[in-house]
Amino acid sequence: MAKTSEVEIILVGNELLKGERRDSHAQFIGNLIGTIGVRLTRAHIVPDDREIIGDTVRRRMRSARAIVVSGGLGPTHDDITREAVADGLGASLEFREDQWKWIVGVFSRFNKTPHESNKRQAYFPPGSEVIPNALGTAPGFMIEKDGCLVAVLPGPPRELRPMMESTVLDKLQSIFRRDPLFTETFRTTGIGESDMTPKVGPLFANFEKEFVVSSLPHLGGVDVVLTARTDGDLKKLKKRADKFEASLREILGAHVFGKGTRSFQAVVGDLLIKRGETLGVSESLTGGLIGKNLTDTPGSSAYLLADVVAYSNESKVEFVGVRKASLKKHGAVSEVVCREMAAGIRARTDATYGLATTGIAGPDGGTKEKPVGLTYFGLASGDGEEIRHRVFPGDRITIRERVAYATLYLLYRKLTRV
Amino acid sequence: MAKTSEVEIILVGNELLKGERRDSHAQFIGNLIGTIGVRLTRAHIVPDDREIIGDTVRRRMRSARAIVVSGGLGPTHDDITREAVADGLGASLEFREDQWKWIVGVFSRFNKTPHESNKRQAYFPPGSEVIPNALGTAPGFMIEKDGCLVAVLPGPPRELRPMMESTVLDKLQSIFRRDPLFTETFRTTGIGESDMTPKVGPLFANFEKEFVVSSLPHLGGVDVVLTARTDGDLKKLKKRADKFEASLREILGAHVFGKGTRSFQAVVGDLLIKRGETLGVSESLTGGLIGKNLTDTPGSSAYLLADVVAYSNESKVEFVGVRKASLKKHGAVSEVVCREMAAGIRARTDATYGLATTGIAGPDGGTKEKPVGLTYFGLASGDGEEIRHRVFPGDRITIRERVAYATLYLLYRKLTRV
Repeated sequence: MAKTSEVEIILVGNELLKGERRDSHAQFIGNLIGTIGVRLTRAHIVPDDREIIGDTVRRRMRSARAIVVSGGLGPTHDDITREAVADGLGASLEFREDQWKWIVGVFSRFNKTPHESNKRQAYFPPGSEVIPNALGTAPGFMIEKDGCLVAVLPGPPRELRPMMESTVLDKLQSIFRRDPLFTETFRTTGIGESDMTPKVGPLFANFEKEFVVSSLPHLGGVDVVLTARTDGDLKKLKKRADKFEASLREILGAHVFGKGTRSFQAVVGDLLIKRGETLGVSESLTGGLIGKNLTDTPGSSAYLLADVVAYSNESKVEFVGVRKASLKKHGAVSEVVCREMAAGIRARTDATYGLATTGIAGPDGGTKEKPVGLTYFGLASGDGEEIRHRVFPGDRITIRERVAYATLYLLYRKLTRV
Repeated sequence: MAKTSEVEIILVGNELLKGERRDSHAQFIGNLIGTIGVRLTRAHIVPDDREIIGDTVRRRMRSARAIVVSGGLGPTHDDITREAVADGLGASLEFREDQWKWIVGVFSRFNKTPHESNKRQAYFPPGSEVIPNALGTAPGFMIEKDGCLVAVLPGPPRELRPMMESTVLDKLQSIFRRDPLFTETFRTTGIGESDMTPKVGPLFANFEKEFVVSSLPHLGGVDVVLTARTDGDLKKLKKRADKFEASLREILGAHVFGKGTRSFQAVVGDLLIKRGETLGVSESLTGGLIGKNLTDTPGSSAYLLADVVAYSNESKVEFVGVRKASLKKHGAVSEVVCREMAAGIRARTDATYGLATTGIAGPDGGTKEKPVGLTYFGLASGDGEEIRHRVFPGDRITIRERVAYATLYLLYRKLTRV
């Protein structure tokens, strides 16, 4: 293959450049094509500008074996992607009667008739393969030219994702016919990159010949990622990776919480399920974030009994049995109240463990004695309560994320004795 | 200015292309520089590859007035951004003793000594201005060459953001000295793009001379965005936009829920605060997502009393007073239980309104009678309970997001009588 680049994506949308939307396609597509051993080599975000889109398609077709373009296929006048891609391909657009009938059919299923403007969605470059859209009115299309596959898909994730997962992925697989490049991620927590580097440096060096070893800081720790340098013998690579893992676990112990993409929350849930134990949570400043994070993973009902967001003082008393006297004497953001919340939710749900948070998420509500970020978080178990406090840095969203992580880390330590 | 492009960003990181991380810098930077009237014109995600990074910098310097490069400034061997940018600039790197001292100082404040590898972080292209990093060990830098400002910043958001907000933004302001381009976003809900287009088409056409009018679908509705075609008379544009807004509200009524970037959740909160009313929530399948969304916005404690995630049957009985007989007869995912949850949380918190959700988020747990996605969601008020049910499409995360939105929309309708 003369091409220097495998798959590139061109994401179309002023809203992605003006900060009105955060792209999720790069992550999704990178992940997806990784499963068939194909690499996303570059991503470009470009404005709703016919010339720039057309130009980018034309230029990147020279280097890339495949290009996915997303966004701007709707019926409105600022949806100019189909025209721009045709420019890039040096092609025109032709009306496809069959596709127009399909669009009319979609509308009629909802007892509606399409508007005249929807007719634009039935135009395609000659010779394209139409990609059906099960969840919207804009079909996609793909076409090969000059050794490059150009696939064009609508922008909304719920429409793009199934279209990528079926038609486009099959096509990429038939183009690349690739053994998956070996990659493995080891996830660690409770140790920063600077502390980890000297400990694991010699180990990393030992495996440099077969793997690119990268470390990637995240909210509560560091991911260590192995990627094979070449498409070698998969079995052999797997064996070496197992060896790497064993050494890493020997060095870092339970700081290594998992492998792959499974989240820290999911891993804590797995530990509880394995032990047949249960959890009750009572949140104040995190407002439901801990519960939301835990229940993002299927199966969480096996251990999570209840999560009471006791936002008002009255609800702290009513739902988890905090004493009015404690609130009056110490205030809601205090060690005493946090302890009563953790013990209270544990008792009321009859769970093995109780977790609690109370603090000041900001930006307002801070004082000199109790600044923004000050948080008490704690764990109740059969051994009593363990309450910590810390002033977390960052804005409201960051503070809440850090608190949620730190609180769950208390439980993780209890379950693994890090 | 001979440059055709204003600001571009180059995001460095294999993890962004392999799907291990989702970029947030494009959105943040696009938003931030928009506040001084400067446009992000393109974004590029590139791998940790010295040649590609260097090439991209060199090529984009020709068109862009300013480039921000982020990521790959750490101490590890895969952090090669500073070398690559130097390649792109056609420059070398020189050791800066003062910066090394600063790094040593940061470590000593945490009672640590830097590793030999941290020394790399004290190298800069000659003539660069160092950008201090208050929250990490990697300083950034910026340098002007051939009419292009190149600013290089570390990748972690909590380090990059304050560096962008202070030093880099000031520099961009001094370069562009721009009146902010006029832009205004009107947010709508409860009406799809296809239904809205024929209603608002004539209005959009009336304002085409001054504004680019775009419509942007989001989870529960459509945003309508006005952007001035030219840097015209701000006062006049503002007046025309007000006129546009009045007509839009006349056509769509309370479907227009707000302006700017304020979220739907925040707007519902504002309405409650204005009316001096309060809310209790009881969630099952959404697991805390509604509470999390509401409390993302500061000031939510003014109306949110409690949110009980009653995940187990027992907790539905214990915390919100669902009757055991109802659970036995109808199951947890039923209209009756949803009604008892909504009424129960309202009664126990003594709130003006109660909201409740119960359903099957999947991917497992569905049956023929109760498929994945089936959800009962409801509102309790002084007028009794209003319970809806729907089978929401999508994966677990999407289903939960849709349920959270639809449930809050019930309350929004009640508050605005859409």
